[in-house]
Amino acid sequence: MAIVLGENRYGKAEVRLVRVDRDGDRHGVTDLNVSVALSGDMTDTHLTGANDKVLATDTQKNTVFAFARDGIGAIESFAARLARHFVDSQPSIHRARVRIEQYTWHRLGPHSFSRAGDGTRTAVVTYDGSRAWTVSGLADLTVLNSTDSEFWGFPRDAYTTLQETKDRILATAVTASWRHTGDDVDWDASHATARDSLLTAFAGTYSLSLQQTLYAMGERALNAREEICEVRLAMPNKHHFLVDMSTWGLDNPNEVWYAADRPYGLIEASIIRDDLPPAPEAWLGVKGFI
Amino acid sequence: MAIVLGENRYGKAEVRLVRVDRDGDRHGVTDLNVSVALSGDMTDTHLTGANDKVLATDTQKNTVFAFARDGIGAIESFAARLARHFVDSQPSIHRARVRIEQYTWHRLGPHSFSRAGDGTRTAVVTYDGSRAWTVSGLADLTVLNSTDSEFWGFPRDAYTTLQETKDRILATAVTASWRHTGDDVDWDASHATARDSLLTAFAGTYSLSLQQTLYAMGERALNAREEICEVRLAMPNKHHFLVDMSTWGLDNPNEVWYAADRPYGLIEASIIRDDLPPAPEAWLGVKGFI
Amino acid sequence: MAIVLGENRYGKAEVRLVRVDRDGDRHGVTDLNVSVALSGDMTDTHLTGANDKVLATDTQKNTVFAFARDGIGAIESFAARLARHFVDSQPSIHRARVRIEQYTWHRLGPHSFSRAGDGTRTAVVTYDGSRAWTVSGLADLTVLNSTDSEFWGFPRDAYTTLQETKDRILATAVTASWRHTGDDVDWDASHATARDSLLTAFAGTYSLSLQQTLYAMGERALNAREEICEVRLAMPNKHHFLVDMSTWGLDNPNEVWYAADRPYGLIEASIIRDDLPPAPEAWLGVKGFI
Amino acid sequence: MAIVLGENRYGKAEVRLVRVDRDGDRHGVTDLNVSVALSGDMTDTHLTGANDKVLATDTQKNTVFAFARDGIGAIESFAARLARHFVDSQPSIHRARVRIEQYTWHRLGPHSFSRAGDGTRTAVVTYDGSRAWTVSGLADLTVLNSTDSEFWGFPRDAYTTLQETKDRILATAVTASWRHTGDDVDWDASHATARDSLLTAFAGTYSLSLQQTLYAMGERALNAREEICEVRLAMPNKHHFLVDMSTWGLDNPNEVWYAADRPYGLIEASIIRDDLPPAPEAWLGVKGFI
Repeated sequence: MAIVLGENRYGKAEVRLVRVDRDGDRHGVTDLNVSVALSGDMTDTHLTGANDKVLATDTQKNTVFAFARDGIGAIESFAARLARHFVDSQPSIHRARVRIEQYTWHRLGPHSFSRAGDGTRTAVVTYDGSRAWTVSGLADLTVLNSTDSEFWGFPRDAYTTLQETKDRILATAVTASWRHTGDDVDWDASHATARDSLLTAFAGTYSLSLQQTLYAMGERALNAREEICEVRLAMPNKHHFLVDMSTWGLDNPNEVWYAADRPYGLIEASIIRDDLPPAPEAWLGVKGFI
Repeated sequence: MAIVLGENRYGKAEVRLVRVDRDGDRHGVTDLNVSVALSGDMTDTHLTGANDKVLATDTQKNTVFAFARDGIGAIESFAARLARHFVDSQPSIHRARVRIEQYTWHRLGPHSFSRAGDGTRTAVVTYDGSRAWTVSGLADLTVLNSTDSEFWGFPRDAYTTLQETKDRILATAVTASWRHTGDDVDWDASHATARDSLLTAFAGTYSLSLQQTLYAMGERALNAREEICEVRLAMPNKHHFLVDMSTWGLDNPNEVWYAADRPYGLIEASIIRDDLPPAPEAWLGVKGFI
Repeated sequence: MAIVLGENRYGKAEVRLVRVDRDGDRHGVTDLNVSVALSGDMTDTHLTGANDKVLATDTQKNTVFAFARDGIGAIESFAARLARHFVDSQPSIHRARVRIEQYTWHRLGPHSFSRAGDGTRTAVVTYDGSRAWTVSGLADLTVLNSTDSEFWGFPRDAYTTLQETKDRILATAVTASWRHTGDDVDWDASHATARDSLLTAFAGTYSLSLQQTLYAMGERALNAREEICEVRLAMPNKHHFLVDMSTWGLDNPNEVWYAADRPYGLIEASIIRDDLPPAPEAWLGVKGFI
Repeated sequence: MAIVLGENRYGKAEVRLVRVDRDGDRHGVTDLNVSVALSGDMTDTHLTGANDKVLATDTQKNTVFAFARDGIGAIESFAARLARHFVDSQPSIHRARVRIEQYTWHRLGPHSFSRAGDGTRTAVVTYDGSRAWTVSGLADLTVLNSTDSEFWGFPRDAYTTLQETKDRILATAVTASWRHTGDDVDWDASHATARDSLLTAFAGTYSLSLQQTLYAMGERALNAREEICEVRLAMPNKHHFLVDMSTWGLDNPNEVWYAADRPYGLIEASIIRDDLPPAPEAWLGVKGFI
């Protein structure tokens, strides 16, 4: 019945790093938000405040910047380089998790850019000294179908008042993450295909429930890239309510809608290949699916 | 030395309206945030709570939805229709201001869309029963030049520590608003040209100060559209600091930067044609320039 | 028809300054967000990028920190010290506006504190080389009356559907600002009395409209402090809708409510002494009343 | 290598419920944000869109409101009532998780209140048809010690530049969650004691690392309430940097600080009794520890 230290981790969060790649007059820009979480032999600092095993979070931040000096590449690779460094160079660190959010930019000119704003690319790499788990993803990608969505046939209990519908707006902000079977992946190509699969399946699915659309999206990504073995999706149902204009003497043939903020439905599911072992280590610290 | 009611206004803010335009299988979507502010003969409700002159804000919201039934068109036109309605139909209302923010969407399919996220289109129309002022604009458009920006020659007082630079990142989130000489304008074409002018001038100006870039942007828009007579710009200087890697034995030839949140510079200016009267009425309630 | 520079200003925004006052073992903490906006002879930097008249915003930030070395006192005084310094020491600067937000902290121990979170104290001081305008205020103070609020007697047009009510929740997030006749004020005492007046009037007013409550709040503050000559209030009507439980066989005697986010009513008004000249200079840059 | 549905859940999130308790003229107010997540036999809706096992999220929302009709009590009890209802009344629902955030209000008068803002009370109850796990907590409680914090003795690698310090500001925004051994708890008393323990330990610990402070906080709560068996804490290190005034000819004896936004340290740990089994089910969906 003694009190002891359980699971723990620490690190520097939200290091805002911008790298400019200069190829003569034509520049490229990589805009990242990097968070590091380390765990290992950390009992002393919790119990006595002895910090000889605590790589300072300021040092972690410096390391993120220093490693960017050599170029970044795909965020999955950059996260892996950092995670391996922390574990391999510090005996007291047994596990490192590096999470990166990448903001994309449109090109305006040779060295001019505008921030895209239609979704963020994400990666989380966890490394324990012997193996690494890589989870890629995207967040804040808001999509809408203005028709081809129904919702009916649900059970009616004492509290049910919702009307069935054969035509509604289906809108959501997609947070998706996907796990890979290995690390020998062309990350940029894989991400582009996965993103495109999610969007294509969203647009192309005649939907009887948001769950059905979600499943179709995950399935499409799994079919498109064999190195992806699990897709997790968290999709709020951003409700749009048809405005009742009958008291004003007007009809409203599914044209004018009120976009509500809260409450919202929230649908979360994992779509997996059935022959693969679960890997809970991979998912620790992945936002948007908890 | 009596206490009296001064300036006042009231209304419904942030009506989230989505309209679907259905042209057979091909749909369009218009996604708006509409805010109404009315003023007039409102002394009674402030002094005694008598509401016979107070068009309920709930009614204002309903009106926004009802007017969308007939189609929306350019947000400047929709705002003007609403503003005129409130003043012309309610004797107690002497002035109406309607502000609209429009979120743009990319097309994914005949009835499928993804939210763009690279800036919001805005409009504020003020109508007083005899004339209207129309201010168009955009907000949250984040842009960055990775070179061609200098900052030097500024005065050095006892508190100055900033080093001069001949090559820095220049980044900002543009909030721009522009006033028109009249209402007989092709609003969509005008907005597209103004937006393009701002972006082109940002990208194309070799900059010695953010003020110089800002002025060039406003000037470009004025030159491009003769019906625009004043442009107001509010541009935060989103500082990027070069990471000093010398203690790690590394150089950093303007490649790795830290993107800071706060504090930030904030540059605001109005660029005008010199032959036109000021119109403070037009600018009341315009966000981002106060 | 030439294009020229109109109104403009620039400065460093959101300098996050924390000062610890050490009186032996007992500490005090002052937690501020300071924004500076300067204007003057700034044509050159806009037209040619010549910066010899541009006190760098980095220098402004340093000045804020340096002036805090001598102690802060009331934020109105600190803002005035800074505003006077910028105009008096820089020939090119003709007007300075300093805006401060102060976050308050509860004491937990001699040198321990928890952030209060029930409203922010604000001040804006504008100085033009000869005189200063001081506007004090508060923001983000959310209050609620669970009864003693009615709303009825409003006009009914073709779009009106709102039911009249004799008992509703009245909730708002108060943003208040008030102007003073002079500078010889005990700012802390004045602010405490004004804040208390606003809260007391909110709680004590039997309300037939939010406008009536707002007016009573401003009037109370004016009556309480003679150096206050104008109060501006911006108060969103944070709607609470009674949940209709009749279809579930339940009554709901004004007990269970749904708190809506958007849209919301927004009521703004100025309450003034009738013998005083308006001072638009004082209000430039005051948030929450535009 | 077939594709199948993995873990999944769905529900209505962020139901904003305000209940007024009326005891004659003296009212009480309970202000909640309720999120429901259900899982069970949901394969059909994912694969075919058949919704006969899908209790609509709209019905879940209605149920939250309807259950509030009978009074709310402690949020742990209210969450448990709801979770049990969903599983026990719907054969297709095998597990329910109900998360509640409670905003606290100060009393201004018999029926008048101001929102507190110094932390949110939280609860997550998970019920699987046979047993329930209850996790209580708090979030967004920002605290600061202006002295009695050191940080030194950390390892120095090639990227370390941080100076050691014997006196710094220690500030954090506490997110804490704690698990109980059973359900026969006076939740309000337990929460009050746990909150007080966390604050007292924060203020009273002479700190050599934020980890040491965090551990002391969790240990204090465990010692104070025997029904608490595990405390999880997530505490950002909200960095305050001493402003270097030496170039301005000023000293700065730990008085003037710059409060940084990002990056920040993030310390997370679980403090547990050593004789109790882990309960990962309890922690699914608990925010702030991932």
